[in-house]
Amino acid sequence: MTNQPTQAERDVMRDLIDRALDEAKDGGKAGIAAAVMRGDTLIARGLNEVHLRHDPTRHAEIVAISAATRALSDPDLSGCTLLTTLQPCEMCLSAMRFAGIRRVIYAAGRPDVVETKYFAFPGLTIPDFRRADHDDFTAIGGVDEDRIRHIYAMGAD
Amino acid sequence: MTNQPTQAERDVMRDLIDRALDEAKDGGKAGIAAAVMRGDTLIARGLNEVHLRHDPTRHAEIVAISAATRALSDPDLSGCTLLTTLQPCEMCLSAMRFAGIRRVIYAAGRPDVVETKYFAFPGLTIPDFRRADHDDFTAIGGVDEDRIRHIYAMGAD
Repeated sequence: MTNQPTQAERDVMRDLIDRALDEAKDGGKAGIAAAVMRGDTLIARGLNEVHLRHDPTRHAEIVAISAATRALSDPDLSGCTLLTTLQPCEMCLSAMRFAGIRRVIYAAGRPDVVETKYFAFPGLTIPDFRRADHDDFTAIGGVDEDRIRHIYAMGAD
Repeated sequence: MTNQPTQAERDVMRDLIDRALDEAKDGGKAGIAAAVMRGDTLIARGLNEVHLRHDPTRHAEIVAISAATRALSDPDLSGCTLLTTLQPCEMCLSAMRFAGIRRVIYAAGRPDVVETKYFAFPGLTIPDFRRADHDDFTAIGGVDEDRIRHIYAMGAD
């Protein structure tokens, strides 16, 4: 797998950002969208459902990973790529690895956002997690971030 | 909050271990049980549903946290305690913190179990996560561990 997004991945990211921007217009929603792809095929998408279900575990990435495993009737998403409009938090990064996913592509990165809102352990970075992982993974950040970064930099809840 | 489990918490842990042992008799199930309590009141329980739903995000702690927030119609579980038969993985520890929970009690600890099976980032310990957390939390391990440790030490999947 390459360290650059494919054109199909860029197309899915553009669509995710459109969806996240739409969500963010609606007060109270987090405006985060995620997807799981296998090669250039979209398997499943997810939107943040925290407010919808009063459930802090329903991040967009968790929703997308769950939807992908259901779609494939297989908890193993090895070979898949996770795409998300915001750098995945520690919970979602762990979920990604439990699902066997070794590649993540995201738009806005943590340095540009309100980290205490979107991350549980601000002292740990993606390089920290990569070092702590027996089985390495690839993280590609900053894809199309100019379109979405402002949503996560506001700090409003 | 004390650093020792209360009698009510010990009673819930005993029940969780009974449930986890029951689950483990059924091949293919992880045999992990979790609960959320507020003071001495049980709010919700969860069993590992990974095999049931083909979904690697359905750890017992995630199921219990989701059930507790639904039960209270509130994503904020501040003041609650998470109990689990196995030291929470990185995903569940993050979910716990997103829910505002600052206290976790567990039975079996990571040194006694197959860490590559139950943890995504074996290089990071609970003290690492505590240091990385702006808002500290308390972890009490080893409660009643002698009854359940063998289940997680076997390595079978």
